[in-house]
Amino acid sequence: MPRYRLTIEYDGTPYVGWQRQVNGRSVQQAIEEALGCFIRSTPALMAAGRTDTGVHATGQVIQIDMDDIFDPERLMGALNFHLRPEPVSILDASLAAEGWHARFSATGRRYLYRILTRRGPPALDRDRVWHVQAPLDSDAMHRAAQALVGHHDFTTFRAVRCQSRSPVKTLDRLTVSRVGGEIHITAAARSFLHHQVRSMVGTLKLVGEGRWTTADVKAALEARDRRALGLNAPPQGLCLTDVTYD
Amino acid sequence: MPRYRLTIEYDGTPYVGWQRQVNGRSVQQAIEEALGCFIRSTPALMAAGRTDTGVHATGQVIQIDMDDIFDPERLMGALNFHLRPEPVSILDASLAAEGWHARFSATGRRYLYRILTRRGPPALDRDRVWHVQAPLDSDAMHRAAQALVGHHDFTTFRAVRCQSRSPVKTLDRLTVSRVGGEIHITAAARSFLHHQVRSMVGTLKLVGEGRWTTADVKAALEARDRRALGLNAPPQGLCLTDVTYD
Repeated sequence: MPRYRLTIEYDGTPYVGWQRQVNGRSVQQAIEEALGCFIRSTPALMAAGRTDTGVHATGQVIQIDMDDIFDPERLMGALNFHLRPEPVSILDASLAAEGWHARFSATGRRYLYRILTRRGPPALDRDRVWHVQAPLDSDAMHRAAQALVGHHDFTTFRAVRCQSRSPVKTLDRLTVSRVGGEIHITAAARSFLHHQVRSMVGTLKLVGEGRWTTADVKAALEARDRRALGLNAPPQGLCLTDVTYD
Repeated sequence: MPRYRLTIEYDGTPYVGWQRQVNGRSVQQAIEEALGCFIRSTPALMAAGRTDTGVHATGQVIQIDMDDIFDPERLMGALNFHLRPEPVSILDASLAAEGWHARFSATGRRYLYRILTRRGPPALDRDRVWHVQAPLDSDAMHRAAQALVGHHDFTTFRAVRCQSRSPVKTLDRLTVSRVGGEIHITAAARSFLHHQVRSMVGTLKLVGEGRWTTADVKAALEARDRRALGLNAPPQGLCLTDVTYD
């Protein structure tokens, strides 16, 4: 059965996340319904990263297994046409190489988290940023972030309902920089635990406010206990930007 | 009567533009209604630039004349609180200096126009960019743009219903640059004619596609005739970013 590889962008605001759920509309369902407008078989979809409710993607990668044969360019065009009312866009489509898998072949994932630091609320980027009125020290946040980089047991930074077999992950990069009126946090790893990026961002925000030190972040990591977590950042600032394959 | 000076941001998508209209909800109306929740007098509002339906602002400047006396910081807080359901945000507020006028004291206005050039439609920036599927030559656009800079009769680039007394304006700057997957066009002048920026952008897009040359742009300008206009760009890519005062 042919496997198609697609790169997609979506606004996570109106969805319960990537994956099909009984309690609401998912990005997966939106794409399956669009496919249903022009294919005959029942497709099987899988994504490189399962984004949560309200989390966005500019570079999510998914696979579609289906019996129907399409020129990938035409598949992309037809999907974008039928997706028109939805804030979901197919950016690229190709036939997957033999043995390639969207999730299991991925060797890197990168997320961007945006914090808007100013008094006035966001009007144009309402559902795209975490609005923090207090000024944040991005240099202190960046220094503290380095305590999380590396091979660690991230139990503190893991959602209770996380399904990963092990809490041990290798965080390749965690950078904090100021970009105009925003603070951008970039996280890169082979894979992440459920809520890991948002939990790390929430903790770094406490550092930015001067309420936590780098030592507090280290202590929270070493506690290996969810109750040691400072704060979980809200979903709307998070965006899956890249998935890499060897 | 005290005059307050406010810097505001808004998403123009749900509004008929800045100014009150009988045919729909304006940004002005949204702010007047929010004021009505906590002031006693009837305020008089005026903006530095009258943005059209669907046009955004990140740095619009407005004045509010009203009898009520407020600490500007508290006025900003109260307005943002009552504006909460609206995509309108007050970024800054102060008491205006004697003789200052939001519109007539302005000595410069700057707009940014964003064009997204790729095949897939925008999902995250749906109402924020002009989606152009064809590749555009931003260098050729920039070179052609320089033919419009300076003191000219911009009749060709002026809406039929433009209320300006004279079609002669001085365009200080018009730059075209590629920023990632987008083309950004920045226009700066003391003031603009109605639809001038969108008309210039539409014309430059023809140059980017290779359908028009710099000579065609010059000829259109010299024609001083709206019928010589190549194309008017859609509103959603346009944003008023700055208003300057001496």
